[in-house]
Amino acid sequence: MDFKEELNKKLELINTELQKYIRNDDCPEKILNSSVEYSLMAGGKRLRPILIISTYELFGKDVEKTFVFAVAMEMIHTFSLIHDDLPGIDNDDYRRGKLTNHKKFNEATAILAGDSLLNYAYNLVLNDIINNKENQNRKLQALQELSYGIDRMIAGEYIDTEYEGKEILGQYLEYMHKNKTGALIRASVRIGAILAGATQEDINKLTLYAEKIGLGFQIKDDILSEIGDTEKLGKPVGNDREKGKCTYVTKYGLEKSSQMLDEIINDAIEIISSFDKSDFLKELALYIANRNK
Amino acid sequence: MDFKEELNKKLELINTELQKYIRNDDCPEKILNSSVEYSLMAGGKRLRPILIISTYELFGKDVEKTFVFAVAMEMIHTFSLIHDDLPGIDNDDYRRGKLTNHKKFNEATAILAGDSLLNYAYNLVLNDIINNKENQNRKLQALQELSYGIDRMIAGEYIDTEYEGKEILGQYLEYMHKNKTGALIRASVRIGAILAGATQEDINKLTLYAEKIGLGFQIKDDILSEIGDTEKLGKPVGNDREKGKCTYVTKYGLEKSSQMLDEIINDAIEIISSFDKSDFLKELALYIANRNK
Repeated sequence: MDFKEELNKKLELINTELQKYIRNDDCPEKILNSSVEYSLMAGGKRLRPILIISTYELFGKDVEKTFVFAVAMEMIHTFSLIHDDLPGIDNDDYRRGKLTNHKKFNEATAILAGDSLLNYAYNLVLNDIINNKENQNRKLQALQELSYGIDRMIAGEYIDTEYEGKEILGQYLEYMHKNKTGALIRASVRIGAILAGATQEDINKLTLYAEKIGLGFQIKDDILSEIGDTEKLGKPVGNDREKGKCTYVTKYGLEKSSQMLDEIINDAIEIISSFDKSDFLKELALYIANRNK
Repeated sequence: MDFKEELNKKLELINTELQKYIRNDDCPEKILNSSVEYSLMAGGKRLRPILIISTYELFGKDVEKTFVFAVAMEMIHTFSLIHDDLPGIDNDDYRRGKLTNHKKFNEATAILAGDSLLNYAYNLVLNDIINNKENQNRKLQALQELSYGIDRMIAGEYIDTEYEGKEILGQYLEYMHKNKTGALIRASVRIGAILAGATQEDINKLTLYAEKIGLGFQIKDDILSEIGDTEKLGKPVGNDREKGKCTYVTKYGLEKSSQMLDEIINDAIEIISSFDKSDFLKELALYIANRNK
């Protein structure tokens, strides 16, 4: 199976798993549940759950053991996007080519849909830990890893809002991105490794890989936000600059940013190459650098 | 010790515990952490953590085993208030006599402070479960109970926003309050009982007590919002009516609401009286009905 086929297969797998957790019973809060479904099934790249599964596959075959974490991770990512888009934060009207949650529903619903997803993610994993005691300790460690990642993601998001329209020091820009985008990508790779029972040495190496692709992902995001294709991106190009956002491109320029991206992705590939069966994760690093949306 | 003394002692105990989890290190997100501290230490009644501790005391003496849940519960309650007050939801300027979080800081900070508290609460309990394996199963059950309570609280909050300015059926009003206010009160009592290893029969009885005082708490809230003292309440009286909120008072009138409150509190007292050492929880039910803030 070539990389693109495998990527799509994993994406479909995750969409199928996510669909199982959609709540569509006829209850008084059914519109809230619809708004959760709207954002959750809006066609994301599913990068974070794919990282959980693919990292696990370096060590084990029974990937279904990672599914509840894969679902929870995508819910957390979706919560972060819904709140990020709110009028009080980025005030974005479009995401992935569709109206943002608060534009499609309303602001109150979007705030509560985000809250609901954050909580629901924990709820699912806790149910799994309680009802399926196999590898309970690993799962608890993995959930703590998720929790730490969320904490850092929120901190990064906060810094992003604080520095909007202001000059930012290089060190803060890196800290911001390391947290805002990097933390959940890092957590995804570590969760996959922890669930598979990887050694501490391997977890450390994989963490380094994750930090590189997390930073690479953000730099590419910044580049696409400057010169990407609005239609493919599903959101307006030039948005970040207009809002006075601090990005790699506004800080270092396009050329330097592209060069930094190449170096970081090469580093990531070198690190992951020390593992057997690492082809997919190598290709995934390249995909992050070369994607157009 | 009389009831008021014991209530205050417990309140101080909880404030001391909460203080231990305030993050005030010099990091780039320190204003976010300040905003969390601002709302968390704004002088709440601490009813929910007091319920956890007091329910536990029906069965056991070593109440320190409940502290991490007491802290987490108050963080969850505070998160719900911060988001509830946001311009996109209730748009309130004052809470407990102080500016609401988004008025003191800004909207982005308030959204993220709420998110941070919700996540931090899970984080603390997970750390305790992982690092202190005694009674791990009970603690996992208690955390699942918290998680379910949060889910229901968010659903209730959503219904409140959906019916603002609209006529509401009695059954929906009860469903809304059962979830919005009742769910965390119910979860608090159940968490205290679960942590103490209570029998299922006792948990069921205590759940009934919790549901009664939860409903009583909301009816009293609605009455205070109509005829309370603005200074004591720390927020404007008549607020609910002005916003077209559905409350017991707007639905049933003052007299009928007061009568319903009395009946419910009497029921709660009758249920809790079957337990030894239930004096504090009896007095607490009366306190809920008679408070002026």
